[in-house]
Amino acid sequence: MKKQGNSIGVVAPQRAHFDEPLTLRSGSVLPAYDLVYETYGALNAAKSNAILVCHALSGHHHVAGHYADDPANLGWWDNIIGPGRPLDTDKFFIVGVNNLGGCHGSTGPSTINPTTGKPWGADFPLVAVVDWVRAQSRLADSLGIDSWAAVIGGSLGGMQALRWTITFPERIRHALVIAAAPKLTAQNIAFNDVARQAILTDPEFHGGHYYEHGVFPRRGLRLARMLGHITYLSDDQMDQKFGRELRHGAFAFDYGVEFEVESYLRHQGDKFAGYFDANTYLLMTKALDYFDPAREGDGDLAQALAVARAKFLVIAFSTDWRFSPARSREIVSALLKNGQDVSYAEPRCNFGHDSFLMDDPHYHAVVRAYLDRVKI
Amino acid sequence: MKKQGNSIGVVAPQRAHFDEPLTLRSGSVLPAYDLVYETYGALNAAKSNAILVCHALSGHHHVAGHYADDPANLGWWDNIIGPGRPLDTDKFFIVGVNNLGGCHGSTGPSTINPTTGKPWGADFPLVAVVDWVRAQSRLADSLGIDSWAAVIGGSLGGMQALRWTITFPERIRHALVIAAAPKLTAQNIAFNDVARQAILTDPEFHGGHYYEHGVFPRRGLRLARMLGHITYLSDDQMDQKFGRELRHGAFAFDYGVEFEVESYLRHQGDKFAGYFDANTYLLMTKALDYFDPAREGDGDLAQALAVARAKFLVIAFSTDWRFSPARSREIVSALLKNGQDVSYAEPRCNFGHDSFLMDDPHYHAVVRAYLDRVKI
Repeated sequence: MKKQGNSIGVVAPQRAHFDEPLTLRSGSVLPAYDLVYETYGALNAAKSNAILVCHALSGHHHVAGHYADDPANLGWWDNIIGPGRPLDTDKFFIVGVNNLGGCHGSTGPSTINPTTGKPWGADFPLVAVVDWVRAQSRLADSLGIDSWAAVIGGSLGGMQALRWTITFPERIRHALVIAAAPKLTAQNIAFNDVARQAILTDPEFHGGHYYEHGVFPRRGLRLARMLGHITYLSDDQMDQKFGRELRHGAFAFDYGVEFEVESYLRHQGDKFAGYFDANTYLLMTKALDYFDPAREGDGDLAQALAVARAKFLVIAFSTDWRFSPARSREIVSALLKNGQDVSYAEPRCNFGHDSFLMDDPHYHAVVRAYLDRVKI
Repeated sequence: MKKQGNSIGVVAPQRAHFDEPLTLRSGSVLPAYDLVYETYGALNAAKSNAILVCHALSGHHHVAGHYADDPANLGWWDNIIGPGRPLDTDKFFIVGVNNLGGCHGSTGPSTINPTTGKPWGADFPLVAVVDWVRAQSRLADSLGIDSWAAVIGGSLGGMQALRWTITFPERIRHALVIAAAPKLTAQNIAFNDVARQAILTDPEFHGGHYYEHGVFPRRGLRLARMLGHITYLSDDQMDQKFGRELRHGAFAFDYGVEFEVESYLRHQGDKFAGYFDANTYLLMTKALDYFDPAREGDGDLAQALAVARAKFLVIAFSTDWRFSPARSREIVSALLKNGQDVSYAEPRCNFGHDSFLMDDPHYHAVVRAYLDRVKI
């Protein structure tokens, strides 16, 4: 099947500064903050064609296209965004934003705390998904967008879309919740905690103030990413891709790379630890753990979602064992219980949790068909 | 259902020294070694009633009963061994042994290398399952046991039982292969590699020679155990046991313990790092990775198993996602293809991979019924 549409091409990041203090879920107050973002396509006169793309754990605002000076660095969801693509920039004005606490330009642990003149480090307050949504709503204000045509995201991004429908029901017309869950299970939290402990116990973590020591908890972040990566892939996919293939044809009987899968994982860990911030990783995993909108409805997700006015598209992937289809169906069931408008798709896509990032024809066709019918 | 049978009571470890050099799968030669072991019940005059119990990753020779001076320290499989229990010491003579490379008394990385007068550390050769089986066969020789009535083990222990049927087909009459797999998947290896990397990159690992530095890679071993522990439990069991229960009733918005599951996992990791040896952990995970008897049959497990003369009982647990029932059924299918004698059971036991250690009535009844019919 020939890929439809084109990449948006050259894009450039923008920066918005917000002076109004933001009271966070934790009770902490962020006196001021910056958000970096990108936009693709044109906002129409009615300002009714805006789609917000929310990123997952390690994502950022560079969602589509490339920078003029770095053509190889395509946005992380370029395959779905552009003229003629499912998130069609000929129809929609698309906004990607780096969330608060991120490490790609928005205010976070690695940016300067104006009070001290030093990086925030461990003093940066922990944030919840609702805090991101509130910060995103101010970005919407600054862009003159009263109501998003849609908010879309995969994994932790899908949780933000869900949160938008509860926190700002009048400001979101469609929520596309992909490879998400209404809350983490004990096993999900356990994996996050091992990843966090790897970072927190790295001797170069220095209680989160490693910037000042000129070091970086690289070992811990590398382990966290290796572990995370296993949970993003399906068992079958790993077997098809690597199986038990040996790197050097025979066992070496030492602790170097023996199996190809070891080489792959270590490479992924090394690469990630080379560009991502450890404090941001910690903070993002905590936001995942905290997410649980049903807590506001006495544990009843339907009650929590009853306030939503949006229409929903929920998508889960059959091979995703991190947030399995059963978790997405919990969201669908809650919405159906309320008589709310929800469509559900479960494409057979072999890439596990990471399927949401992949260019799968069935999956993309579902998103395209849904967004084609969204009135602007 | 009332528990049948009793604990064996007071037991004592024994030590056997072997002077004949052992050539390992890697090509390395161990000039001499000790094995510590325990026995329960009495060897009959025909020496036909011996059962060998093989331990898994973190197990050892103290399989049943307790020491006179330590009544609380029951053997790790005490619930299945004793007079009137499924491994009935009124009928069988049962042997538990700490494998080569272990850290409970048998020769391993933490014991003294006679050549240097210092602990072996990283100089201890990596071992494969077949090496353990060869060492165990010499222990059988020293006990005057020509042929085991049965060899039994769970997980990595089950792999040893399987290996016995191929390496010494005339010396094993029954193989009880529980919660095992014919080889690891790429995902299994990946989890092992993250655990190993946690230890290997711990600054206190010192290339495996930490004994000489008076330190211990506690952080790494703790992480390895936390991660391993997640894979031993079922997702459902974790949800039933911990769910999203909070330690202090409300979110603290910091990196201390928030969820009960975090407390549990960290405790398990701390406890394990307090008594287990990191080099042994590394070595045991490598033995798991290497295990793949089908490599000797051009990848055909049936061909590799064709030499076996034993009868088989294969048991898998429905909630085990580390070595799922599908992996056990690969063994069963290979045996059936050869027309070999195999029984298979798949008890519904909620404890995931760890089910093999549990006192589940259905599971224990299957083992009891099978062993009742074993002629001695």
